[in-house]
Amino acid sequence: MPRVSTDQLAARRQHILDGARRCFAAHGYEGATVRRLEQSTGLSRGAIFHYFRDKDALFLALAEQDARRMADVVAEQGLVQVMRDLLETARGEGTDGVEADGASDRSWLGTRLEVSRRLRTDPDFRERWQAHSAELTAATRERLERQAAAGALRDDVPVPVLAQYLELVLEGLVSHLAMGLPADALDGVLDLVEQSVRTLRR
Amino acid sequence: MPRVSTDQLAARRQHILDGARRCFAAHGYEGATVRRLEQSTGLSRGAIFHYFRDKDALFLALAEQDARRMADVVAEQGLVQVMRDLLETARGEGTDGVEADGASDRSWLGTRLEVSRRLRTDPDFRERWQAHSAELTAATRERLERQAAAGALRDDVPVPVLAQYLELVLEGLVSHLAMGLPADALDGVLDLVEQSVRTLRR
Repeated sequence: MPRVSTDQLAARRQHILDGARRCFAAHGYEGATVRRLEQSTGLSRGAIFHYFRDKDALFLALAEQDARRMADVVAEQGLVQVMRDLLETARGEGTDGVEADGASDRSWLGTRLEVSRRLRTDPDFRERWQAHSAELTAATRERLERQAAAGALRDDVPVPVLAQYLELVLEGLVSHLAMGLPADALDGVLDLVEQSVRTLRR
Repeated sequence: MPRVSTDQLAARRQHILDGARRCFAAHGYEGATVRRLEQSTGLSRGAIFHYFRDKDALFLALAEQDARRMADVVAEQGLVQVMRDLLETARGEGTDGVEADGASDRSWLGTRLEVSRRLRTDPDFRERWQAHSAELTAATRERLERQAAAGALRDDVPVPVLAQYLELVLEGLVSHLAMGLPADALDGVLDLVEQSVRTLRR
């Protein structure tokens, strides 16, 4: 067998993740059969399961990667910006037509919805997922703490409550968009959300 | 065959709906097999499908009933109150331990989540669901219009945006609770949500 570099391994692994993301988004967890995973990745089951123990490991790796990317965006730009990006992408009007890292890819919504469903029905999954959920919460709180220190946030509501509020709205937005419901009025909604955590200007 | 009254028919129908709700909540749409529906209703498949054409008709009837009850509560007490009720029930600390109509029953969350999933994956279902979704939106808007007329709402954001905002938070709350995530900090979040649609008092 030819030797492959670490870079090649990582690229192959990422290729599988990208294909699998489309597949899970289109067919759901149960519907993403091994045959469909082969089609969407263009690889044999042997190749796929060389990198991931089973379908479950593949799905978890995917969800973890998405959660980590999201935490990065939150740390840089905040959770409301994540929501605005989501909204734009769902409308198919990405600012420059290029998705630098695929984090706000439309299929990401499908993964999120599957995560929600499995969190509800699978206690093992819920336990493993805690760490990633905590990562996002930490990133959100840290950014809010920085904004609070800069005097940009309202000071009559504790930062953990503001963080939970934003996460709840995000969850609602993901649901809404994943269901394909209309996104027209949502810019105004996000303005309202952003304003409601900021220092009073009205 | 003995003749049964309209009341008896309605009671039987409701009995099936209640059992089916528990079954769908516990096992999801796919997992709610005919055998499980028999167990949860205590009736034979013949009896169940005498009242509902098929499993799909049963699920839709259930989801419709829940949506109608919710619109009623919204008209009376508003969407934030619906959310507070949901929160209390999810914590298992209902105010008087009695669910008058089962509308905020814990299993209702399961139905909602299944609706979300099917809206996403089933275009026919989405189309049939529009009417019920529109009913809730209408109830929410009407109540907000009445509050606005009474000067209780902020006047710098249009009522449709406020309504959409509340619906988005509700969707997030349903997701959050259905996933079994912690509900501790959510009272403060709902206070913030309520405050952010009201006339400025800060």
